[in-house]
Amino acid sequence: MKIGIIGGTGKLGAALGGRWAKAGHTVFLGSRSADSATAVADELRGRLGGDIAGTTNLEAARQAEVVVSCVPFSAQEERLKEIAEAAKGKIFVDCTVPLVPPRVMRVQLPAEGSAAQRAEGFLGEGVRMTSAFHSVAAHKLATDATVPGDVLVFGDEKAARDVVVGLAGDAGLRGLHGGGLPNSAAAEALTSVLIFINKTYRVDGAGLSIIGDLVEPDAA
Amino acid sequence: MKIGIIGGTGKLGAALGGRWAKAGHTVFLGSRSADSATAVADELRGRLGGDIAGTTNLEAARQAEVVVSCVPFSAQEERLKEIAEAAKGKIFVDCTVPLVPPRVMRVQLPAEGSAAQRAEGFLGEGVRMTSAFHSVAAHKLATDATVPGDVLVFGDEKAARDVVVGLAGDAGLRGLHGGGLPNSAAAEALTSVLIFINKTYRVDGAGLSIIGDLVEPDAA
Repeated sequence: MKIGIIGGTGKLGAALGGRWAKAGHTVFLGSRSADSATAVADELRGRLGGDIAGTTNLEAARQAEVVVSCVPFSAQEERLKEIAEAAKGKIFVDCTVPLVPPRVMRVQLPAEGSAAQRAEGFLGEGVRMTSAFHSVAAHKLATDATVPGDVLVFGDEKAARDVVVGLAGDAGLRGLHGGGLPNSAAAEALTSVLIFINKTYRVDGAGLSIIGDLVEPDAA
Repeated sequence: MKIGIIGGTGKLGAALGGRWAKAGHTVFLGSRSADSATAVADELRGRLGGDIAGTTNLEAARQAEVVVSCVPFSAQEERLKEIAEAAKGKIFVDCTVPLVPPRVMRVQLPAEGSAAQRAEGFLGEGVRMTSAFHSVAAHKLATDATVPGDVLVFGDEKAARDVVVGLAGDAGLRGLHGGGLPNSAAAEALTSVLIFINKTYRVDGAGLSIIGDLVEPDAA
């Protein structure tokens, strides 16, 4: 699958890109600076192998079948409006967590209800919108280690969510359907709670796990 | 500790009351009807032992040191305004999940940001406000079984949260500090996600677990 990553030189974007390239996907790592993206992509390819190259955010979105945004909340509006045209008709995965410094341990959801719904507004009609990868510890994902914890995938279109659940698996994580796009508020808000728990309980990257005897939908 | 439970004849209130009485607390199980509350309290005492009695919601709040509200979202305003005077100066634990039927699998947080902040508005100044027990499977808690999963405890006052973390432990659950009251949005929203997961993955009461090597704050 051709995956374009907006904000691909950040910790989460680079870690996901590296893992997806290693799993056999073609990855276009985007950044405002194609040079920076190329440097990061070269490093990832040298270490993990696979088909990954750096380019601009816009070109990454144009080349991709699936567009993944890993830009920070403060840059979300500007970056997404730049690539909105190129994302039309494609599956879009927003990974934005609405952290508002300096109070990042306090839940501050945007007026739209969630950063995912806010992103949908910037992209306009015709994008197959999903959100995921909110509470993944990026510094762990950047290593070869097994990363425990679950990735909740939100979106109103089940077929689009299915693709993203699969991409979570390809990155070595367990993806779970979490319901419609407004449900993204749960995972986004939980990220501030996890940051609070990291500090309070001196954890290096607390994560979320859904417990219970889950039966795969396809097996139903 | 003297614990008053508002909406104590519902599934969650009765299950918590039974477990707390068994653990040695004095429990005032409140309801609109003192007779209904007495019947439920008698059944719990017969089965689990301990000091538990039924009464009205108002009397339960008056007698208690800690007031716990287990009323449904639709009744939250009316029930809390009735007992607001009696809750002054006390630790208050709101367990309300803002489910809006028929779409209970869809996150629909109230305008205040969370049901906990909404409750704070109904109670007024001078209550030691916390929220907890949002995503506990009440039908499991009603049995003698060990219930896995974590209880996130929110509130702006750490000392009040400490008491509620302890009460979670007394009910056989792991309580964890989750940060300030606005962070309650995370656990409240997650409940709709868990209901969605129950249906999608055919789980009997999916739960939430925080993973990572947590160090108890007191040991720090």
